[in-house]
Amino acid sequence: MTLNEFNKLTKQEAIAELEKCCVSKCWIQHMIENMPFASSNELTLKTADIWYHQCRELDWQAAFEGHPKIGDITSLKEKFANTKNWATNEQSKVTDADENVLKALAKANDDYLNKFGYIFIVSASGKSAKEMLSIINARLDNTKEDELHVAMGEQHKITVIRLAKLIDDVKSNADLRSHITTHVLDTTTGIPGKGMQINLNGLTDNIWKPITVGVTNNDGRIADLLPPGKNLEAGTYQLVFNTANYYKEQQQDGFYPEVSIQFIVTDHDHYHVPLLLNPYGYTTYRGS
Amino acid sequence: MTLNEFNKLTKQEAIAELEKCCVSKCWIQHMIENMPFASSNELTLKTADIWYHQCRELDWQAAFEGHPKIGDITSLKEKFANTKNWATNEQSKVTDADENVLKALAKANDDYLNKFGYIFIVSASGKSAKEMLSIINARLDNTKEDELHVAMGEQHKITVIRLAKLIDDVKSNADLRSHITTHVLDTTTGIPGKGMQINLNGLTDNIWKPITVGVTNNDGRIADLLPPGKNLEAGTYQLVFNTANYYKEQQQDGFYPEVSIQFIVTDHDHYHVPLLLNPYGYTTYRGS
Amino acid sequence: MTLNEFNKLTKQEAIAELEKCCVSKCWIQHMIENMPFASSNELTLKTADIWYHQCRELDWQAAFEGHPKIGDITSLKEKFANTKNWATNEQSKVTDADENVLKALAKANDDYLNKFGYIFIVSASGKSAKEMLSIINARLDNTKEDELHVAMGEQHKITVIRLAKLIDDVKSNADLRSHITTHVLDTTTGIPGKGMQINLNGLTDNIWKPITVGVTNNDGRIADLLPPGKNLEAGTYQLVFNTANYYKEQQQDGFYPEVSIQFIVTDHDHYHVPLLLNPYGYTTYRGS
Amino acid sequence: MTLNEFNKLTKQEAIAELEKCCVSKCWIQHMIENMPFASSNELTLKTADIWYHQCRELDWQAAFEGHPKIGDITSLKEKFANTKNWATNEQSKVTDADENVLKALAKANDDYLNKFGYIFIVSASGKSAKEMLSIINARLDNTKEDELHVAMGEQHKITVIRLAKLIDDVKSNADLRSHITTHVLDTTTGIPGKGMQINLNGLTDNIWKPITVGVTNNDGRIADLLPPGKNLEAGTYQLVFNTANYYKEQQQDGFYPEVSIQFIVTDHDHYHVPLLLNPYGYTTYRGS
Repeated sequence: MTLNEFNKLTKQEAIAELEKCCVSKCWIQHMIENMPFASSNELTLKTADIWYHQCRELDWQAAFEGHPKIGDITSLKEKFANTKNWATNEQSKVTDADENVLKALAKANDDYLNKFGYIFIVSASGKSAKEMLSIINARLDNTKEDELHVAMGEQHKITVIRLAKLIDDVKSNADLRSHITTHVLDTTTGIPGKGMQINLNGLTDNIWKPITVGVTNNDGRIADLLPPGKNLEAGTYQLVFNTANYYKEQQQDGFYPEVSIQFIVTDHDHYHVPLLLNPYGYTTYRGS
Repeated sequence: MTLNEFNKLTKQEAIAELEKCCVSKCWIQHMIENMPFASSNELTLKTADIWYHQCRELDWQAAFEGHPKIGDITSLKEKFANTKNWATNEQSKVTDADENVLKALAKANDDYLNKFGYIFIVSASGKSAKEMLSIINARLDNTKEDELHVAMGEQHKITVIRLAKLIDDVKSNADLRSHITTHVLDTTTGIPGKGMQINLNGLTDNIWKPITVGVTNNDGRIADLLPPGKNLEAGTYQLVFNTANYYKEQQQDGFYPEVSIQFIVTDHDHYHVPLLLNPYGYTTYRGS
Repeated sequence: MTLNEFNKLTKQEAIAELEKCCVSKCWIQHMIENMPFASSNELTLKTADIWYHQCRELDWQAAFEGHPKIGDITSLKEKFANTKNWATNEQSKVTDADENVLKALAKANDDYLNKFGYIFIVSASGKSAKEMLSIINARLDNTKEDELHVAMGEQHKITVIRLAKLIDDVKSNADLRSHITTHVLDTTTGIPGKGMQINLNGLTDNIWKPITVGVTNNDGRIADLLPPGKNLEAGTYQLVFNTANYYKEQQQDGFYPEVSIQFIVTDHDHYHVPLLLNPYGYTTYRGS
Repeated sequence: MTLNEFNKLTKQEAIAELEKCCVSKCWIQHMIENMPFASSNELTLKTADIWYHQCRELDWQAAFEGHPKIGDITSLKEKFANTKNWATNEQSKVTDADENVLKALAKANDDYLNKFGYIFIVSASGKSAKEMLSIINARLDNTKEDELHVAMGEQHKITVIRLAKLIDDVKSNADLRSHITTHVLDTTTGIPGKGMQINLNGLTDNIWKPITVGVTNNDGRIADLLPPGKNLEAGTYQLVFNTANYYKEQQQDGFYPEVSIQFIVTDHDHYHVPLLLNPYGYTTYRGS
């Protein structure tokens, strides 16, 4: 539907549609109060604002409960009938993975639930089971407090993806790319560095706090490193590229166990921080 | 109109529309014979094939005659009524330029006509008078034989731009980006290197032959370095970046009077050859 | 004197000479026991071996007591008459510094003594007061345990410098360069990056431990990052370049608050880890 | 002998010694007239000055006649008895080469003599037969006029090497490094790029003129790219790295058939122009 059509829905109809995007009552309630939206941009920015500033920990965890466990195919069939189709699609790549990865993923999901008290949330679109395994293992290292914020960011990405499926105007809003983007080029092979895990951290009180974890796609990029409409505050941030695993998978030696790039964010402009990598050298720069 | 609508035009109607794109009788005749086109991709590839392989020198020069002289505003008003609107629009940036540049551009146009025997053809969309002056001066150095091929490429770019205005399907064909692209990043300022002249040359019998000349836009790129659908043959090519002028305009010293990057093209894959530039160092790589 | 002449000294004479290099009785005793030395290389390696593996915390602290406080010119005149000339010379650059730096340095020396319980030891040769201030402030952040090891390394550097003044063969031993070296090139200005603070850390039990802190000289290098003859064990190490201060001094903006390069050391080969720096980009590689 | 001892030689003795370095009567005569030399630096600069500005084409060719043909072992035994020992030593690596390379080298020597009218002169110290073959083949492409200047430079290098063997002070003069130096690092392997042919050219009247051709040693460097004491005039120069052959020898694909770096020389400061190379990317900078 168009944004115009969405704005004209009755309250009951709008609640039913928004529930397909995120089941948090807090978020839905505030969204309804803000209708009609003047533009898809306003709707997306309001989504972020409500999520980060109006909702509280219980609201966030309530939203997490609205998801099937990633990799748990049987639970997909039973739970939350109205989001089933989209969730299946978003997780469609899991089925291609081999048995061992799926078993490890299932175990990691259990470990995650045990450690954090809620299921593992990840914006799974386009990710293979192996990539998800890499992400969940990285996030299992987080403290409870840190991981809550990482999971919130993932829920936010999922919400926006679903809003874009719901409302045509959101989909075509090209301005809402991730505030931070990166790109890994392997200049030994001349092709993008794919399947590389990258952590984005922020410096708070002189300590690095995890913001998100992603894995590069076949073009060496992570399209959704940050959720659309989520701008980082001015401060010092860090991208950490897991080069050790990248070279291990290629059965190649490398000089750098990881590459970490610290940089300063001062405004809402887009920040592109690429990595040109080879086993014994690398280059980074502020791109555009 | 859609491609479907175009395919259904009578021969007379189709000729009238194609004339708005390129006045060469040879090209129009072959295009008519190839109608209907199964896809916009086929239409674009056929456009290139006819232009480079079916037409001859007289056909190319006939096409050049269908254009007003760039920068000569008065001739715009008189000549070729049916392309007038588009041409004005394509040259709209000229009016922003200062008087001296326009005078120099007018003189260079005269010199060009005197040297080569036909008017200066350039795909002017988005280019300022200053950028066009940079391009025409670079092309005035070419031999007659070389320049004919450069001008043919420009005519081809213009033809495709006009086909895209005529037929909706062509416009939305995102696959037809330039076979070779580049991007200049100034890593001293952290922003794209704009207004830099770049020459693309090809190695033929151990001699560098000019293929095209462009100027980077505000994003440090040249969108139309090669015409859509024009693939370079396997061989050795060269991008030459005019860094001397770039630094001169910034009243800054630089170590490199020019940067030339020689590279090998083996197939129809896309080749991205960026330059990360600073006054005393630079990096290039095969991008994606 | 030559190594041969040194080997022929009586025990009493040898003790008197070695005391000029390092006052630790433990180190001197073991050195005497190892005389005669077959080569300057053996002497230098034995110096390192005794210092790190035979001596204990009290021995190290005893060695520290043999030094005047850096920047405290008056104490130089009173204390330890037999090392006075060398120490004065090693600290000769202090006198060029301005009053404020000297005051800050004196205060930092007091803070250091209060925090760690022994005076600030640094291989001062060639360093200005400002550079020493940069180093002492960085080291004041260390824990007591970490700083003890950093100070030991500095004492070791001083010992070798003095051994080289004492014994001609040691001086001319060119093989004993630092196991790790670096070089900062500023590719915006085309000249070496001088006066930049660099920390060398090692990864132990997943925690970065400080090994040493240095400041680049006019050629952008730190000649004595590690003491001669001191080889790092196989493991993961990190160079952190303080780029924020570097650009602040030049009143220039930069994208990188620091540059940290993590790398793997596997053997006793020399490791050269340079940095090509500009405000919005950098390159590193394994050099030679 | 020392410079002091050399200065005290009789005219006859001095001529005999200088003849061992270079047989040109013009050069010897002017050298004698300039005795005594105040320093080894003055002697080296005067050597260059006489060679390039006092001597003429016939003098240069006379000097070339004083050499055995490289690779032609039998002629070594007959010709020019007084330079025999040194020449043998300088060409000592030839014997390690395999038969085919030696045959190709012999043929190239013949071709060279036929084309240019004098024997192939190259400062052979430390070069293998294979490296010499690479160099002679590159130089066979030169015009007669260009090659004369390249050969003159080689004669000059040989003269200085022999002067350094003759006079101790010249040997220990570390200041006389090549005005231009380079260094190839292969950042895929992490080791220097060895055996790579590099051409140094200068821009004269908009045409690139060859100045010298060298091959990188095991440390990726060419120590004697220019003769000691030979400063290039202010102007535009170019280093061309033969990367095609480098990768071919490693049976590896590369994107760059060659890497050419154009740069501006403005003074007698040292210019270090390194190349960090990998198959799909490279970096250069002004080093120190």
